Amino acid sequence: MTKKAFPLAKVYGLLEPGPVVLLTTRRRGRNNVMAMSWHAMLEFEPPQVACVVSNRNHSFGNLRATRECVINIPTVAIARQVVACGNASGAEVDKFAAYGLTPRAASRVDAPLIDECYASLECVVVDTRMVARYCLFVVEVVKAWVDAKVGDPRTIHHRGRGVFTVAGRTIKLRSRMK
Amino acid sequence: MTKKAFPLAKVYGLLEPGPVVLLTTRRRGRNNVMAMSWHAMLEFEPPQVACVVSNRNHSFGNLRATRECVINIPTVAIARQVVACGNASGAEVDKFAAYGLTPRAASRVDAPLIDECYASLECVVVDTRMVARYCLFVVEVVKAWVDAKVGDPRTIHHRGRGVFTVAGRTIKLRSRMK
Repeated sequence: MTKKAFPLAKVYGLLEPGPVVLLTTRRRGRNNVMAMSWHAMLEFEPPQVACVVSNRNHSFGNLRATRECVINIPTVAIARQVVACGNASGAEVDKFAAYGLTPRAASRVDAPLIDECYASLECVVVDTRMVARYCLFVVEVVKAWVDAKVGDPRTIHHRGRGVFTVAGRTIKLRSRMK
Repeated sequence: MTKKAFPLAKVYGLLEPGPVVLLTTRRRGRNNVMAMSWHAMLEFEPPQVACVVSNRNHSFGNLRATRECVINIPTVAIARQVVACGNASGAEVDKFAAYGLTPRAASRVDAPLIDECYASLECVVVDTRMVARYCLFVVEVVKAWVDAKVGDPRTIHHRGRGVFTVAGRTIKLRSRMK
């Protein structure tokens, strides 16, 4: 996909709706990717995100060691690949090769962007104090990329055990909220 | 709505998709309610949830003082009321009365359930160590209620400035993920 740089101040609008994301890391020359749904915005700008990455995941060690990742946002078009990523371990499988995902070089971090995702957020870890207790990493988005052609992305939202809600219609209400 | 008790082990499937929720508190005999989108699951069972409540919100003081709340999950049927809650302060308005929301007594906490929401999660605050830095409260769900008739809830997902995605179709993929 052709992605363009996206303003950091608008990043919250991508993650706040709660989509499943693909978190990529890179360590010792090897890429990894995991599916993640346990994330929340913490700050608008610079955008900070709470990410829960289980210490049973291969990505946990990568994230703790490299303190970098990319949060990639898929749509329903690659839902099967997202589930495949969630069902395999990067300790055993090169998931990019196995599931047909294309890594692209990021600009500010070593972890790769995923070409098939409509948005990619380059992140650095800024707080690890909640890792021991909650496996919660605070990351800051330092560069964002979005395919501007995807206006109303059909993101997927996990409800457990392979059941997902697909983003439906868009409504606009008068609001003073940011 | 007629809600029944819901297993705590399945609560993650309600919050993980990222819906806007209505967080209720009660202090000194007064109910309050705020709209919240910055939340993430932290643990499956007992279900623990990270909730970001700005210290500019009236609910912040209530939550810190009482250490109790209810997370209520609305659908698009009351989207206008959700936005109204997000645009007013409980310091000035009784939002239940002003926006036609009906409080119901909870079983384990003083904060009220909202009758018009299809699910309500009674919560107690279990960790305030991230409040000073991130306005992040860790709450534990101690009792859950769901209207079993609402199978595929049309939850709303905030994308900023009054734009919401409504939950659309449901897909089911083979997965070993919980």
